[in-house]
Amino acid sequence: MEQIVRDFNSYMDEIRMYSQLMGVAYFDANTVAPNTGVAARAKRDGFFSEKVFLMTTSDKMKGYLDELAPVADKLDDITRARFKKAKKNFDKSTKIPSQLVKEFSELKSKANVIWQEARKNDDFASFAPTLEQIVAKSKEAMEHRLEPGQSIYNAMLDDYEEGMNMEIYDKFFAQVREVVVPLLKAVVGSSKKIDAGFMNSQVDKADQEKISTFAAEKIGYDTARGLITESTHPFCSGTHKTDVRITTRYDERDFISSFYSILHECGHAIYEQSTCDTIAETELSRGASMGIHESQSRFYENVIGRSRGFWDYITKELKGYLPKSFDDVTSEQFYEAVNQAGPSLIRVEADELTYSLHIMIRYEIERMLFVDNLPVSELPRVWNEKYQEYLGITPPNNALGVLQDIHWSMGAFGYFPTYALGTAYASQFVSEMKKDLDFDGLIAKGDFAAITAWMTDKIHRHGSMHSPGEILEMVCGGGLDASHYTNYLKEKFEALYQVKV
Amino acid sequence: MEQIVRDFNSYMDEIRMYSQLMGVAYFDANTVAPNTGVAARAKRDGFFSEKVFLMTTSDKMKGYLDELAPVADKLDDITRARFKKAKKNFDKSTKIPSQLVKEFSELKSKANVIWQEARKNDDFASFAPTLEQIVAKSKEAMEHRLEPGQSIYNAMLDDYEEGMNMEIYDKFFAQVREVVVPLLKAVVGSSKKIDAGFMNSQVDKADQEKISTFAAEKIGYDTARGLITESTHPFCSGTHKTDVRITTRYDERDFISSFYSILHECGHAIYEQSTCDTIAETELSRGASMGIHESQSRFYENVIGRSRGFWDYITKELKGYLPKSFDDVTSEQFYEAVNQAGPSLIRVEADELTYSLHIMIRYEIERMLFVDNLPVSELPRVWNEKYQEYLGITPPNNALGVLQDIHWSMGAFGYFPTYALGTAYASQFVSEMKKDLDFDGLIAKGDFAAITAWMTDKIHRHGSMHSPGEILEMVCGGGLDASHYTNYLKEKFEALYQVKV
Repeated sequence: MEQIVRDFNSYMDEIRMYSQLMGVAYFDANTVAPNTGVAARAKRDGFFSEKVFLMTTSDKMKGYLDELAPVADKLDDITRARFKKAKKNFDKSTKIPSQLVKEFSELKSKANVIWQEARKNDDFASFAPTLEQIVAKSKEAMEHRLEPGQSIYNAMLDDYEEGMNMEIYDKFFAQVREVVVPLLKAVVGSSKKIDAGFMNSQVDKADQEKISTFAAEKIGYDTARGLITESTHPFCSGTHKTDVRITTRYDERDFISSFYSILHECGHAIYEQSTCDTIAETELSRGASMGIHESQSRFYENVIGRSRGFWDYITKELKGYLPKSFDDVTSEQFYEAVNQAGPSLIRVEADELTYSLHIMIRYEIERMLFVDNLPVSELPRVWNEKYQEYLGITPPNNALGVLQDIHWSMGAFGYFPTYALGTAYASQFVSEMKKDLDFDGLIAKGDFAAITAWMTDKIHRHGSMHSPGEILEMVCGGGLDASHYTNYLKEKFEALYQVKV
Repeated sequence: MEQIVRDFNSYMDEIRMYSQLMGVAYFDANTVAPNTGVAARAKRDGFFSEKVFLMTTSDKMKGYLDELAPVADKLDDITRARFKKAKKNFDKSTKIPSQLVKEFSELKSKANVIWQEARKNDDFASFAPTLEQIVAKSKEAMEHRLEPGQSIYNAMLDDYEEGMNMEIYDKFFAQVREVVVPLLKAVVGSSKKIDAGFMNSQVDKADQEKISTFAAEKIGYDTARGLITESTHPFCSGTHKTDVRITTRYDERDFISSFYSILHECGHAIYEQSTCDTIAETELSRGASMGIHESQSRFYENVIGRSRGFWDYITKELKGYLPKSFDDVTSEQFYEAVNQAGPSLIRVEADELTYSLHIMIRYEIERMLFVDNLPVSELPRVWNEKYQEYLGITPPNNALGVLQDIHWSMGAFGYFPTYALGTAYASQFVSEMKKDLDFDGLIAKGDFAAITAWMTDKIHRHGSMHSPGEILEMVCGGGLDASHYTNYLKEKFEALYQVKV
């Protein structure tokens, strides 16, 4: 058995080597690589993705998993965690007939192109038949791997955040709906108007770069074990805890956009830089789940970065890098400007208050697609009705509505809801943290070390040794509870907009 | 047979995918990667190097080679070229017992550290026993793979430049010695003194970056299919003809250093960007040999870049980027400054005239080590005597003498001589080019397109379809002939230093 454990771990290490090298290639492709090399890169990436797929679904892997399954409880913690992840992935990947995988993959490639064209031309009808096929194929594929009694959409939700299902999300979004919808209405009706125009003053890129480094280091990102550079879409790329990088993009008329990208990506990066050394050489060093990862990015971006205390502290510091035009801006003005809230059409541009409503709409629609068999042709109508109902606005066209996101063209159903978990998880963690630390006081002093140390102790160091549910249980003594999140939003936006709901 | 050919090509394609991805990792490691990640990178690089070694020496590879050997002459050109390279590499890599390979590899790792310390402390004696072992192990390893009648050093020379041996190099260096040694003496004794002090005026990095792009594009490097960035040591990194990058380093008090690095690396890059599309997806798209590759870098750097015509053209253009302090500098002054020649101790800082003497000394010493069994303890004495004999100077210590290069600590014997081939091959090519083109006239006009097109037609497009010897035969109708090179040096430096030898 010792030999099997050793061989299994070596095999997993080998797969990890591929992921690491592919991570380097991803970073390269998205930062400096010339566009002309795109075809060669696509070929190479396809080759290595297939390589990893074949390794994770091989007979060799099956052999290890079969040998380890009966003794899983007796394995050391790290091997057991690796085994569980590998097994889940193996079962998921091998139950769908390879012919179906191939057909589906081709369909998705085609769908992506068709979606892009449809969005460009605001022509939902040209995308509908393909999306109909995507939905049908998704159902067909999931049927092969449902566990007894499991519904298709629940399996999808579990794919993107282990342990999640409609029961949990229904309750979660009900709480969100109950608080945020009336809160938004109150905000819209408030006589309080925030002027954020001053934020669009020119800030040279060179100064923004200095702000990036200052802010990143201040909140705890170790720039020596990474770097900050530019890319079209900001991302965090970690291949090992000794090398975790972040990117941003600079708009000289919107410095705050890069500022928050940095805080967001730093949350992801601090997480991966702070995993325990004992798992540094394994795939467990990446982060527990999409939701838990997002809890860290949203924690630094929103909970800290959009708090009043943070702006009380950072305003003076920032002015050291900002041009004269910001000299007279008060911390209060900054705080209000970065928290301006209101209805909007585009998810990726939504503010902190309304973001989860955008997600909720997508969740409800996916649920209708897979539980109620809503025809795809109905999507634009349902989409627009829900935007009207929850946000009080109707998209003027489908390009700004149902066609805006890439996810469905990729067959990524069940993915959206994880986006709503970030600040919600973070709010739960903060409730616990406040029992141990003077959270608000530390932020107002610009002293983030103890805060990050707490997060590292409770969450970061474990990497993905535990499922998101286990982490919630360990840290908060219970499961997902949206009340921390909704209380946080309520308290913040009632005060800011001088409303009461 | 068709099936074997297909399978063999697929297998080679697969190996190439690994090389490509490792190329990306190399570029990343040497440009942006944080130092902290060095251990994780070493592990990863070791893993993939071994992977490639195992693939190139596998039973599968042996099977293909055995099947293809009897029909090699009937294969299509590309498959035959791939087969020949793969076979040569297989034979080389598999004939040495794996235990010996392992021991040698460990010895070299150890030796590198000892060499670094020895150089730092100017302590040859502390390195000598290890170098003795390296020489002994090199001999032992080579014994296993000698062809009938082949000597050890000839096998080493052939490893780094196919087809080379002592007979060719002896003759080559004799020609060099005969011309360059007296020429250098005459230069040293000349009353003509060149003042290059003005070259150390401040040139801001931002301006040097503009110069890099201008110069690179001007001589034919396609910046869209690559990029120019910084690294500690300049290099060219090509993973595919659509993505060939170059690096340089900027010293604000020595702008010409980066300028020539750019021209040099552009030579390598233009070569790889100009390989034929039919071999773009194969390992044949890299370049014929180290010597032929260096012929292209030295061609753009020296033959073009240090010519009078080039400075007649480029002086005005450069002044558009240089600060006012260069306003009064004439093209003649630039030309003289970049061709200042004289004895020096350090190979990598040597000028065009003396560079090959530094190489010759190393060649002669290696020859003594492997043919005459010169004891390692004698190296400092022999080294210093040869520097005195050929360059007229004696190193004041071993750190500036026999300990300066890393190569021997890596067991890389036979490598140095390829460095002398660059400008020598280039001079031969130019002699041919002049039959077809008004070479000097085109350079003086700053019109490099026809020159590069000629090089592409004769050399670049073939990649490594042919051996260096075959290329010389195809382009020049003969083998290596140093007279073109020595004539070039003689003509240039006699005129510059107003001497006659």
